[in-house]
Amino acid sequence: MSDKKISPAVIHRLPRYYRYLSELLEEGVERISSGELSERMRVTASQIRQDLNNFGGFGQQGYGYQVVSLKEEIGHILGIDRGHRVIIIGAGNLGRALANYPGFEKRGFDIAGIFDSDPDKCGCPAGNLTVRNTEELPVFLSNTPVDIAALTLPKSAALEVAESLTDFGVKAFWNFSSAELQHSEVLAKAGAVVENVHLAESLMRLSYALTDRDGLV
Amino acid sequence: MSDKKISPAVIHRLPRYYRYLSELLEEGVERISSGELSERMRVTASQIRQDLNNFGGFGQQGYGYQVVSLKEEIGHILGIDRGHRVIIIGAGNLGRALANYPGFEKRGFDIAGIFDSDPDKCGCPAGNLTVRNTEELPVFLSNTPVDIAALTLPKSAALEVAESLTDFGVKAFWNFSSAELQHSEVLAKAGAVVENVHLAESLMRLSYALTDRDGLV
Repeated sequence: MSDKKISPAVIHRLPRYYRYLSELLEEGVERISSGELSERMRVTASQIRQDLNNFGGFGQQGYGYQVVSLKEEIGHILGIDRGHRVIIIGAGNLGRALANYPGFEKRGFDIAGIFDSDPDKCGCPAGNLTVRNTEELPVFLSNTPVDIAALTLPKSAALEVAESLTDFGVKAFWNFSSAELQHSEVLAKAGAVVENVHLAESLMRLSYALTDRDGLV
Repeated sequence: MSDKKISPAVIHRLPRYYRYLSELLEEGVERISSGELSERMRVTASQIRQDLNNFGGFGQQGYGYQVVSLKEEIGHILGIDRGHRVIIIGAGNLGRALANYPGFEKRGFDIAGIFDSDPDKCGCPAGNLTVRNTEELPVFLSNTPVDIAALTLPKSAALEVAESLTDFGVKAFWNFSSAELQHSEVLAKAGAVVENVHLAESLMRLSYALTDRDGLV
């Protein structure tokens, strides 16, 4: 890879490229021009060329992009090919939905375990896993190194759990709670990264869009 | 309300204000200065004053904001006080998780039904509801007007279902599938609004952040 830093705006668009390229592969498409990709993704061809030139330029004039190698390269930039191991903390409905989420395996993420502090939930099935007690986490993580924790537990517990997980090498948090982990000094010190999924805020934005549409604002 | 159009950036931040104000109310806090709110939310006090002045200015010099009225006003702008009725299409794990999602009721959203085209899922419980067959939708929607549909069904079916729902007055889609509904002419014609939740893209962004952190890009 080049040393050039890719801009956050381009990075933000890469997962969408990855998704389209995966679909093209599934359809058996081997190569595609920036024009065709543009039509499909509804962005301009010049944007596509600019974005993809950022990290080397895979396209050849008059030939187009090779779907499989472009997808692999973008997957590499996104770190998808590194084979992340994931645990889910919180075996409520959302946690169990994630345990069943086919998107993990499809992208090479291995779900190693799902945990809950509620003894009533422990022992229950969740996807191919059985819910374990949160108390087992230290031993579990000593034997099974994990990169990523999906946090599907209440806000009140999320920060403390996330901070304690950094002691066991967890470095990335997929945060579905509304706890604002990015303010934690413990996480900052551990160099942990956080990606928030704020369902409540998303729902409120939809409500606003609907209100705005109806001319009520 | 004033006729002034609120900027998308401010709108994007309103749900977060709403969330913090709800928490303050739960803690029994009746009023708060922009300085205190700033510390809590980790944004500058001047940003808070600017944002909230956008739609009238609720704060009084030396007194601060009245939490309850500010929360109500922001809720009104977001359209939360209009009492939306929601249906969920797709009773897989994610759909059932949404049926159990306390965030709906807390914000005045009424989940009126959950539907699936798979007869094996119909009749099963989901939250306080029972999964119905998608075939029942036309009759159901004639009797029960619905604003919002949460789409937790496969991409292959999402567009067709969304387009048909516009015939029955559904005007807003909370789209968890990766179908790009915003390109639909039928939806555009119906003036429907779409809010996407792309879990796969969110997960890939986390993977990138982790890769970037480890200096592998």
